[in-house]
Amino acid sequence: MSRTVVRGGLVVTAAEELYADVLVEGPRIAALAAHGSACAKGWTADRVIDAAGRYVVPGGVDVHTHLDFPFDGTFSADTFATGTRAAAWGGTTTVVDFAVQSRGRTLREGLDLWHTKADGQCAVDYAFHMILSDVTEDTLKEMDLLVEEGITSFRMYMTYPGAYYSDDGRILRALQRSADNGALVMVHAENGVAIDVLAAQALAGGRTEPRRHAEVRHPLLEAEAVHRAVQLARVAGAPLYVLHVSARQAVEELTAARDLGLPVYGETCPQYLFLSAEELARPGFEGAKYVCTTPLRPRGEGHQDALWRALRTDDLQVVSTDHCPFDFAGQKEQGHGDFTRIPSGLPGIEHRMDLLHQGVVAGRISRRRWIELACAAPARMFGLAGRKGSLAPGTDADVVVYDPTAEHTLSAAGHHMNVDYSAYEGMRVTGRVETVLVRGEVVVDRGEYVGRAGHGHFLPRGTCDRPY
Amino acid sequence: MSRTVVRGGLVVTAAEELYADVLVEGPRIAALAAHGSACAKGWTADRVIDAAGRYVVPGGVDVHTHLDFPFDGTFSADTFATGTRAAAWGGTTTVVDFAVQSRGRTLREGLDLWHTKADGQCAVDYAFHMILSDVTEDTLKEMDLLVEEGITSFRMYMTYPGAYYSDDGRILRALQRSADNGALVMVHAENGVAIDVLAAQALAGGRTEPRRHAEVRHPLLEAEAVHRAVQLARVAGAPLYVLHVSARQAVEELTAARDLGLPVYGETCPQYLFLSAEELARPGFEGAKYVCTTPLRPRGEGHQDALWRALRTDDLQVVSTDHCPFDFAGQKEQGHGDFTRIPSGLPGIEHRMDLLHQGVVAGRISRRRWIELACAAPARMFGLAGRKGSLAPGTDADVVVYDPTAEHTLSAAGHHMNVDYSAYEGMRVTGRVETVLVRGEVVVDRGEYVGRAGHGHFLPRGTCDRPY
Amino acid sequence: MSRTVVRGGLVVTAAEELYADVLVEGPRIAALAAHGSACAKGWTADRVIDAAGRYVVPGGVDVHTHLDFPFDGTFSADTFATGTRAAAWGGTTTVVDFAVQSRGRTLREGLDLWHTKADGQCAVDYAFHMILSDVTEDTLKEMDLLVEEGITSFRMYMTYPGAYYSDDGRILRALQRSADNGALVMVHAENGVAIDVLAAQALAGGRTEPRRHAEVRHPLLEAEAVHRAVQLARVAGAPLYVLHVSARQAVEELTAARDLGLPVYGETCPQYLFLSAEELARPGFEGAKYVCTTPLRPRGEGHQDALWRALRTDDLQVVSTDHCPFDFAGQKEQGHGDFTRIPSGLPGIEHRMDLLHQGVVAGRISRRRWIELACAAPARMFGLAGRKGSLAPGTDADVVVYDPTAEHTLSAAGHHMNVDYSAYEGMRVTGRVETVLVRGEVVVDRGEYVGRAGHGHFLPRGTCDRPY
Amino acid sequence: MSRTVVRGGLVVTAAEELYADVLVEGPRIAALAAHGSACAKGWTADRVIDAAGRYVVPGGVDVHTHLDFPFDGTFSADTFATGTRAAAWGGTTTVVDFAVQSRGRTLREGLDLWHTKADGQCAVDYAFHMILSDVTEDTLKEMDLLVEEGITSFRMYMTYPGAYYSDDGRILRALQRSADNGALVMVHAENGVAIDVLAAQALAGGRTEPRRHAEVRHPLLEAEAVHRAVQLARVAGAPLYVLHVSARQAVEELTAARDLGLPVYGETCPQYLFLSAEELARPGFEGAKYVCTTPLRPRGEGHQDALWRALRTDDLQVVSTDHCPFDFAGQKEQGHGDFTRIPSGLPGIEHRMDLLHQGVVAGRISRRRWIELACAAPARMFGLAGRKGSLAPGTDADVVVYDPTAEHTLSAAGHHMNVDYSAYEGMRVTGRVETVLVRGEVVVDRGEYVGRAGHGHFLPRGTCDRPY
Repeated sequence: MSRTVVRGGLVVTAAEELYADVLVEGPRIAALAAHGSACAKGWTADRVIDAAGRYVVPGGVDVHTHLDFPFDGTFSADTFATGTRAAAWGGTTTVVDFAVQSRGRTLREGLDLWHTKADGQCAVDYAFHMILSDVTEDTLKEMDLLVEEGITSFRMYMTYPGAYYSDDGRILRALQRSADNGALVMVHAENGVAIDVLAAQALAGGRTEPRRHAEVRHPLLEAEAVHRAVQLARVAGAPLYVLHVSARQAVEELTAARDLGLPVYGETCPQYLFLSAEELARPGFEGAKYVCTTPLRPRGEGHQDALWRALRTDDLQVVSTDHCPFDFAGQKEQGHGDFTRIPSGLPGIEHRMDLLHQGVVAGRISRRRWIELACAAPARMFGLAGRKGSLAPGTDADVVVYDPTAEHTLSAAGHHMNVDYSAYEGMRVTGRVETVLVRGEVVVDRGEYVGRAGHGHFLPRGTCDRPY
Repeated sequence: MSRTVVRGGLVVTAAEELYADVLVEGPRIAALAAHGSACAKGWTADRVIDAAGRYVVPGGVDVHTHLDFPFDGTFSADTFATGTRAAAWGGTTTVVDFAVQSRGRTLREGLDLWHTKADGQCAVDYAFHMILSDVTEDTLKEMDLLVEEGITSFRMYMTYPGAYYSDDGRILRALQRSADNGALVMVHAENGVAIDVLAAQALAGGRTEPRRHAEVRHPLLEAEAVHRAVQLARVAGAPLYVLHVSARQAVEELTAARDLGLPVYGETCPQYLFLSAEELARPGFEGAKYVCTTPLRPRGEGHQDALWRALRTDDLQVVSTDHCPFDFAGQKEQGHGDFTRIPSGLPGIEHRMDLLHQGVVAGRISRRRWIELACAAPARMFGLAGRKGSLAPGTDADVVVYDPTAEHTLSAAGHHMNVDYSAYEGMRVTGRVETVLVRGEVVVDRGEYVGRAGHGHFLPRGTCDRPY
Repeated sequence: MSRTVVRGGLVVTAAEELYADVLVEGPRIAALAAHGSACAKGWTADRVIDAAGRYVVPGGVDVHTHLDFPFDGTFSADTFATGTRAAAWGGTTTVVDFAVQSRGRTLREGLDLWHTKADGQCAVDYAFHMILSDVTEDTLKEMDLLVEEGITSFRMYMTYPGAYYSDDGRILRALQRSADNGALVMVHAENGVAIDVLAAQALAGGRTEPRRHAEVRHPLLEAEAVHRAVQLARVAGAPLYVLHVSARQAVEELTAARDLGLPVYGETCPQYLFLSAEELARPGFEGAKYVCTTPLRPRGEGHQDALWRALRTDDLQVVSTDHCPFDFAGQKEQGHGDFTRIPSGLPGIEHRMDLLHQGVVAGRISRRRWIELACAAPARMFGLAGRKGSLAPGTDADVVVYDPTAEHTLSAAGHHMNVDYSAYEGMRVTGRVETVLVRGEVVVDRGEYVGRAGHGHFLPRGTCDRPY
Repeated sequence: MSRTVVRGGLVVTAAEELYADVLVEGPRIAALAAHGSACAKGWTADRVIDAAGRYVVPGGVDVHTHLDFPFDGTFSADTFATGTRAAAWGGTTTVVDFAVQSRGRTLREGLDLWHTKADGQCAVDYAFHMILSDVTEDTLKEMDLLVEEGITSFRMYMTYPGAYYSDDGRILRALQRSADNGALVMVHAENGVAIDVLAAQALAGGRTEPRRHAEVRHPLLEAEAVHRAVQLARVAGAPLYVLHVSARQAVEELTAARDLGLPVYGETCPQYLFLSAEELARPGFEGAKYVCTTPLRPRGEGHQDALWRALRTDDLQVVSTDHCPFDFAGQKEQGHGDFTRIPSGLPGIEHRMDLLHQGVVAGRISRRRWIELACAAPARMFGLAGRKGSLAPGTDADVVVYDPTAEHTLSAAGHHMNVDYSAYEGMRVTGRVETVLVRGEVVVDRGEYVGRAGHGHFLPRGTCDRPY
C-alpha cells in the first residue's frame, strides 16, 4: 500500500484551520499530525508533497453538473471524460450529475443510460441524482428502489411545461414519498407556466434577444415557486432542496422557511455571485453566452449581496456549478431570433473552488466557510459524509494543495472545459489549485494533469445527513 | 514527553464524525489516525485509554461562569477551586469567568482581584471577560490595553440601574471602541429601568414571592433590550454578543438581525432549554432555587422550542451555563418576603455537556452540532480557536471520553458543585463523562477525579473569530 | 315624488356617527339634517319612520352570493326570488352574484343566462361578477366589452382542476388584461392541484367523512395560493381581490402584501368569524351542513383572531357571505361516503349584518367599521360608490333602521332563506333589522316583509374605486 | 340664528364624495342636501356661498403645533394670534397645541400659562395636549384630573436628556396610568441618550454644521425608540401615539405593531413627505432653516415612499405640522458653529391642507383619504369627533371651500406665518383654500382674512376614539 505525506501546509476544514501534515495510506487518509510533532516527523512515505505556504483542503464536491446533457436536439459540450478532467484541474474530486428519466420510460432506463455515459470515462469520482419526469405509482416504487442502491436525490421541475415540468400534485406526491424513503427532493423553482406566457408575449412582440430570457424569468416568479415548494414540503412533512437560487426574493423565502425551523435547504452557483443580467445585453449575440436558468439577475437590486449574506449565515448551504456548457458557435447560436431556443447553461465546473475563494479574499466568507460550502456541506447533504468533502482520517484521500496567493486569469484560451468560450473571460483571480489527489492518487501534479479516464468511480450515496 | 493514545472511539467534532485514534504528545494533540491504519497501529504510548463504544470529543468551553461572585453582600457558593473541579467532572475543560470592574475603580483593579481569586486554584484552564461598569475616557483606554493582554470581551448590563447598569450612551461608546480595538461587547439585555418599576409595584402590592421575579422580568422587556442593543451595534458598526437569551421574542430579534447579515451573536443556557417559570411557583420558598436572570420562561408560550430551533439554524451560536450557585439555606433564603433580594443564579457548570446531549438523544440537534455549540463555537467566538474547543492536531489535548449510553440521575447528593441543591434534582439523563484530559493530563479517570488545583492555567485570549 | 323622513335615529356611516333625520325624496336620499335643527323640523313627509333609539344605516352590500348556482348536478336552494328576499329581511339591499362562463362558451351566454334567472325576481338590487372559466383571446376581448357594460369584476379559480380551474398562465393573462381595462380580478385562492391529491388519498384510505373536507384543504394550501396570486398580480401590475379568506396564514400573506403597499384586497365571511372545523365532525352526517370552501378552520390555531385583527386594521376590507345554500336532505346528503361530493356552501345572506354586529357588541370593531365592512367598502370596491353602501344625500335611499339592543335567535325555524337548516342554529344575537328601504320604498316594515319580486333592479357597475 | 348655505360644491368627507349643498344654522351644520333636491332648493339663507367647481370639506385639524414655545432662551415666532390666523388662511380650523409642564412644577401651572397665552388671541378653535416632564405620584394624579377637564393626551420625550427626557420607567408608569384614565400617551421617539453621544462626538470633531443634525439623529435611533415605546405600551396594556414619524425604519416598526393588532398610532408631517436631509447641506448657514426634530431624512433611502405607503394603508393615521417656526435671522442663527443650538422647528401650519392635497394630485392618496388624514382621524384620535373634523349635520360648522385647480406658489413673501422664511420657498402647488367658516362664521372670504382674534374657543376634549 503506497504512502504519501503532504507536509507543511495549513489544513483547512469546515471547522478548523490547523498546521498539520497529512498521511495517506492507499486510497484513504490515514492520519493528520501536527507540524513538528514526533509522530509527524516519524512518517516515511513513497511520496512527499511539499505544501509549505499552501492550504491543504478536501477535494471539492460539485453536486450540480450536466455532462453530455440533452437540450433541444443538442448535447452539452462536456462529456464525462472532458468534464470530470476539467473538474480535477479545478480541485473538484466528486461530481453528482443528473440522470434523466424520459417521460413514459422507467427510471432504470434513464439511470442505465447515464451509467453507460460515465462508465470508464471519469477522472474523478461521480454519483447521480435522478430527474423525475413522471410521478406515477410505478415511478414512486422505483424511487424506493433507487434510494436503496444509492440514488438518493430526485429533481423535479416547476418550469418547462410540456417537458420536464411536474405540477404541484406530482411534486407533493414525490415529497410525501421522500418523507418515507429518505430521499431528498430537489426543485428547479420557477413558475414555468407564468414564464411561458411572458416568453410567448415577448416573442410575439418581437422581443427575441438574449436579454429577454432574464426579463421573462422574473425574480418574483422564482421566489413564488420557492414559496410554493416550501409549503408543499411542509404539507408532506418532507425536507426540500432548492437548486440554483439566484434572486434576492427567493433567498428571502428560504430565509423565512429556516426562521421557522423547516428542513429547507438551498444552493447557489458562482455565476449568480459574480455575473449579472447586464451580460445578456452584450452587443451582437454575445449575450447568449450568459443564458442560464434561473437567469442572471440585474445589478443594483441586491441579488448578489443577498446570496453572499445567505451563504454566510447558512440560509444557503451549498455552492455548486450547474455546469452545462454549450459552444457559442453552433450551439448557443441556434437561438438567434428566438431566445427560448438558446441552449441554457454556462460552463463552470473548473472554476468553482477558485471563484468561491474570491469571497475569502474579499472578506465575504471565512476559509472554513469556503470549505463548508464547496466540500463538506454538499457531501453531507447528499449522503457522502465520511467519504467525501472532509479531510479527516478514514475518509477518501481526495486532497487539494491550494496556493492561496497565486494569481491567474480565467479564459477560454487556458481552461480545460470542452467549450469555446469562458463566462469569466479575462477575470483575474487570486488562488490556484496546485496538486490534486483522488483516492490517494495524484491526478494533478503541480499544475499538470496526470490523471486518467476511468480512475473515477461511481459512488452509491447514503441519504441526506441534514446539515444542521 | 509523555504519550497517550485514546483508542477505538468515535471522534466527534463540529464538522465530522470519524473512527480515529488520538495521539497525545505532552500537552497537545499530536495526531489523529484512522482506526486500524498502519499509522495508528504503529503508535506506542505511556498510557492507552480504551474508548471503544465511546465518543471522543473536545473538552467543553463554558464562556459564562460566575465563581466567587459578589451579590448583595454574599458570594456565589463555588470558588474557583470547587467550581472548576465540578467543571472537570462534567467534561468542561475551559471556563471564561467574569471579572468585575467596580464602579469608580480601574479595570485593572478588578482584573487583579480576579487573578488573585483564581491563581493556583483551578482544575481546568480559565480566562476572563471583564464587566464594564463605567464608561469614561479612562476606562475606554484601559479596554484597549486589556484587549492586548488577552481580555478581549466586555460585558455591559442593560439592567440593574444603580448597580452594573449602563445607559445607551455608554453602551454605544463601548461598542464604538470595540469596533476599533477588536473587542466583543456582550450585553445582559433586559430593560432594567422598566423592570424596576414593575418590581417596585409588585413589592408595594404585596406580591413578594419568587414567582414574581419571572413576572416582572417580562419577555418583551428582554426582546426590547435585544432589539435596542442590536440597533446601537449597527450605529457603532460593531459586533454584539447577547448573553443568556431565554425568551422566544428575544430569539426573534436575533433572528431578524441575522437575516440582515448583521454580526450579532447569542447564547442560551441549559436551564432555559429544560426548565420553566412554573418552577418558581413551587410551594414554600422552594421557587427561590430557580431564580436566575434572565428568568425561566412560562411553558406553553413556545420559548424552549424557539431556543432549540435557533440552536439548530445558528441564530444562537453558543450554549453556556451562567453558573452562579447560591445555597438555598442561608443565601437564597435572604430573599424571603422580597424576591428582589433572592441571590440570582443557578448551579450548572457540571451538567452542560450532559444536558445538551439530551438534545442529541431527542433528535433536536446532531452530534456535530452538540460539539459546535458546547466547544468549538464558544472557543472561536472568544479568541481561543486553535487551542481550545476542537480535537485536532496541534490543539491543547483537552479530551473527553464520553459514554453516550450510560444513564445517571442528576442530584445534589451526587453532584460536585459546592451548593446544597440541584436545579435538576431527580432528572434522568443519558450519556456521561468517563475520562477527561486537560492539556494531556488525566483529570478525571473513568469517573474519578484525579486532577489538582493549579493545573488550570490562565488563558490570554485573541479577539473574536466571528463564527461565520 | 313621495317623501319619507326617518326621524330620531343615530345615523352611522363608515366615517361618522351623527344624530340626524334622513329625508328621502323618491328613490334617493335628499338630505340629512341634525336632530332638532330648524331644517329638520321643517320637513314634511308622506311617511315618517320613527328611529328613536335605533341606528339608521345604509343598506348592506353583499358582494359574494351564489343564487340558483349549479353544483354537481344540483342547484343552490335559493333562487333570486327567495335569496334576495332573505337578503332584504337581513338588511342587505344589494347583492352581487356570480354569473358563470361555461367552459367553451362565451361570457355573453353565461351572462344572459344569469340575467334570465334574475330578471323580475329580485327583492333588492343586484349586479353580477363573471366567473372566467376560459382565458383565450376571445374571452379577453369579451372581458373588455363586459367592463364597459358594467360587469367589472371577474372571478378565477385556483382550485377545482377539471372544472373552473385556471392555471397560473391564464390567471396572469387575465390580470394583465385587467391592468388595462380596469377590471378587478377575484381569486378563489386554494392550491386545488395539491388538494385533489390529498382528497384522493383520503378517499382511497377510507377517510370519507365530512371532516376530511377541512383536513385536505390545508390552511397552508390556501396561504400558498394567496401568495402566488399576489406575485402574479405584481408581475401583471394589476390589483387583486382574494375571496373568502379563512386561514390565519392566508391573512398573513395579505398583510405582507399590504405592508408593501400593493393594491391587494380581501374579504372574509361570517362563518369564518364564528364557526370552526370542529363543526364538521358532528355526529352522523351533520358535519356536511358545514362544508363550504375555503373550509372552516380548526379552533385553537388563531384563525378567527387573525381575521378580526385584519378586519380592524384594514388588511381585509370586506365581509360578504358566500351564500350558497343546499338542503341537508337530498342535497348535502349526496356526499354520503364521499366528502368531495357534498355540495359546498352555507346559507348566510340573511344574517351578515347581524353577525357582524356581534363584533361591535363584543368590542372587536367599532360601529363605523361595521358599516365600512358591510356596506361602504364593498360598494366602493365594486364600482357602486355614490349609489350604494353609504347614507348620504344623492345616493340611493337604501336605508336600514336597526335596533341595536333587540335580541333574537338564529334558527331554520325562523329564517327566510329557502334551506332546511341553519348553520347558526340556536345562536343568540343582539341587534335586529327593523325596517328596510330600497330606493325609497319600504320592503321590510317593522319586521314584516312588504316588498315584492321585481322591485330589485340590475346595477351596471363602474370600476373599482380602490378603497385606499 | 344666522343661516348660511354653501351651494353647488362637491362635499368630500373621509368616507364619501357627494354633490350636496350644506346648510349652516348658527354655529353648526344643520343639514346636507343633494344638489337639486326639493329640500335643497327650498333653503333660504342670510348668506349663500357659491361652491360650484369647488370642494367643500371639513376644516382641518392640526394636532401638533408649538405656538409661543420656549427653546433655549427664545420662543417660536408665531404667537397664538399670528399662528392661528395663518392656520385659518390655510384651511385649518382647529389646532391642538402643547402646554408644557416645567420640571418640578405642577401640570396645572403649565396649563394655566398656556391658557393665558391663548385666551382671547385665537382666530380658530384650539385645545391643549400636555407635555409631561415629571412622572411622580403627584403628576400622575394631576393627569387624572386633567383628563376629566378635557386635556386627554400627554406627550413624553424619549430624547433631550436633561430637559424634557423621560426614562423608560417613567414612560411605563404614564402608560399604565393612561390605561386606567383613558388618556393617550404621545411619544417623541428618538433615542436621545445615544444621539447626545453622537452629537457631542460631532462637535468635538469640529463637525458643527446644520447637516450634522440629521446625521447624528440616525434613522435607526428613531426606529429603535418606536420599537421600545411599543413594547412598553404592550407591557402597560395601553394605546400609544408616535409623533412626527420620519424614517422608513420607524414606519416599519409601526407597521409590525399594527400587523399584531396593537393599538399603536402615528403621525407624519408634510416636511417629511416633501423635503429631505439634503436641504440641511445648503450653502452658507441656509441649512439651519431645515433643522427640525425628528430630522429630515436623506433622499434615495425610501423614506418618503414608506411614509406615503403608510398613509395609504393606515399604518399612519394622521398628518400634522409640528409647526414651530423660528426666524432665520436672530433665531436660527444662534446655532452658528454648534448645530445643537439651532432652534429646532419648521413653519408649516398654513400649508398642511395644500401640501397634502399634492398627494391627491399626484395620485398617492384619494380625496377621501386626504380628509381622513387631515381632518377626521386627528379629530377622532384626540376626542373631538362629533364636533370637529367632519362635515356632517350636528357638527361645528367649520367648513372650507377649496378650489382644487387653482395654482399658487409658496413663499415667505406671501405667507401669513410670522416667520422670515419659507421651508417651501418657490414651490408651486395645485389647490387653494378659498373660503373658511369657523363655527358658522366666515373667517376667510374668497382669499381674504376677515376673522378676528378671540373668535377661537378653547375645546375641552374627550378621550381618544380609537380610529379602528
